[in-house]
Amino acid sequence: MITVLFAANAERWAQYEAPLTAALDAEGLDYRLIPDPSDIAPEAVDYMVYAPLSEVQDFTPYTRLKAVMNLWAGVEGVVQNPTLTVPLTRMVDDEGLTQGMVEWVTGHVLRHHLGMDAHIVNPEHVWDHSPPPLSKDRPVTILGLGALGQACAAALTRLGFPVTGWSRSPKSVEGVTCHHGPDGLDRALEQARIVVLLLPDTPATRDILDARTLARLPRGAVVINPGRGPLIDDAALLAALDEGQVAHATLDVFRTEPLPADHPFWAHPRVTVTPHIASETRPDSAARVIAANIARAERGAPLHHLVDRDAGY
Amino acid sequence: MITVLFAANAERWAQYEAPLTAALDAEGLDYRLIPDPSDIAPEAVDYMVYAPLSEVQDFTPYTRLKAVMNLWAGVEGVVQNPTLTVPLTRMVDDEGLTQGMVEWVTGHVLRHHLGMDAHIVNPEHVWDHSPPPLSKDRPVTILGLGALGQACAAALTRLGFPVTGWSRSPKSVEGVTCHHGPDGLDRALEQARIVVLLLPDTPATRDILDARTLARLPRGAVVINPGRGPLIDDAALLAALDEGQVAHATLDVFRTEPLPADHPFWAHPRVTVTPHIASETRPDSAARVIAANIARAERGAPLHHLVDRDAGY
Repeated sequence: MITVLFAANAERWAQYEAPLTAALDAEGLDYRLIPDPSDIAPEAVDYMVYAPLSEVQDFTPYTRLKAVMNLWAGVEGVVQNPTLTVPLTRMVDDEGLTQGMVEWVTGHVLRHHLGMDAHIVNPEHVWDHSPPPLSKDRPVTILGLGALGQACAAALTRLGFPVTGWSRSPKSVEGVTCHHGPDGLDRALEQARIVVLLLPDTPATRDILDARTLARLPRGAVVINPGRGPLIDDAALLAALDEGQVAHATLDVFRTEPLPADHPFWAHPRVTVTPHIASETRPDSAARVIAANIARAERGAPLHHLVDRDAGY
Repeated sequence: MITVLFAANAERWAQYEAPLTAALDAEGLDYRLIPDPSDIAPEAVDYMVYAPLSEVQDFTPYTRLKAVMNLWAGVEGVVQNPTLTVPLTRMVDDEGLTQGMVEWVTGHVLRHHLGMDAHIVNPEHVWDHSPPPLSKDRPVTILGLGALGQACAAALTRLGFPVTGWSRSPKSVEGVTCHHGPDGLDRALEQARIVVLLLPDTPATRDILDARTLARLPRGAVVINPGRGPLIDDAALLAALDEGQVAHATLDVFRTEPLPADHPFWAHPRVTVTPHIASETRPDSAARVIAANIARAERGAPLHHLVDRDAGY
């Protein structure tokens, strides 16, 4: 029998108890699952499911520990811990992360495409029979053609939207007009009635939507950011909204989260704030990823999603 | 050279001039397109593109007329005209009608699935980080499995929603759990977190959502009606909304359109009214249908979408 310790907070335990139990059962493991570090002697623990803000910060007493499975994709809170000497894995939840992103992006693209807001908020009860154009006449540009960008591009293409994609280095994606590099960025933006940001946050992508690039969009374009907060120069976006260059911005990620109460995005009539919900690790699929990795370790197979301590991720 | 008369009003001409010209050009026809009946001698006209409220009500002077192409699907305003003796076609715009419906239905299903309204209207600036479930955990039921229902089911299935369909007679649709008949209706409704109405308006479907059937839905379900107004018993829906049995209704069609200013749907906080925009003949695709039919007539091929004068459609 192996002992698996859940070393995150009680709220997470409430979310993960049932999915983890089901996933460990499905792997056929003989195990006990302990909900809290104070419930077990450290030297009895074989595997630790871990969140970086856990009360466990000194791994030294966990003498039998075989591996630590981080619950989240980000490991910056644990990767440098000098007391952690066993393998560390990070969460890669393709099912939950990608599917959630596809649903959120498709939904908000269709919301803007169909002009839903004018129907959802219609205090004057205006009956304006003006059907929107079909999707084939609403070009969408996606900045970022990684796994998430490609999955969103595929979903939008299937719905009939002409999709243009941009990436730093050349890529080829079926059904998507691909541009790359600095010149390609301008061409990709010039096409966009709706632009979706799905780039990682790196020094090269920071403020990629600034006053200069926002000016390349057709007047009245819509900006949707489920990627990373620092991709946008907030002040430049607010100015573009005030001038009418950008008709609306729907933002799920911000430089500071939760978005501070005094941030002008909250009160701006043409900004929609969503609370970082576009893509999130889901307990069901994350529990399956963790259980599969524990099963791999038990049969001596190499762990998936191992963290490279030198690279830091 | 053939002469094509556009016999609808000036507003329609503004919408159709460019698409009709492009479509007639694309067919390689040698033609002139006349925008208004007063611009041409009736005996010079070969084909008439027609809307039933046109000033042309007496077809007798149009001695050279070969066919009349109705702009709309409904021909009730012209089919009984005794002066019309040449073939009459009605509009069947698969591309515009079906694609528009798929976009509207997919958009509003995702809107309710993602809980967008709480973000679009958020006067207290609440940051509530509660990601929605994935689509696989949001069952959708579609009443009506005709061309529109099947197309919407396919789009929702591709996005991961479990789709149940209901039709009066048995049908089999790939990827859709199909029910039929009176007993099947109850089973289809019991599954539905979101129910979409895409039935025709017939004596058998009138008031299909009434107090009894609304009570079969799981509490807090969402009703979406882009089908026909009479499918819903308005008073029963309002009662179900007030009781919380139905969480929200998004309605595109009504017994009287435009929806009268004093109808309680307008002011109800859990009703969204959209102005009959889900599906509509689009000038681009409709023009191609008309031009293709004129080209068929010119080369002696049978016309598509011919109206049966006895049946009346």
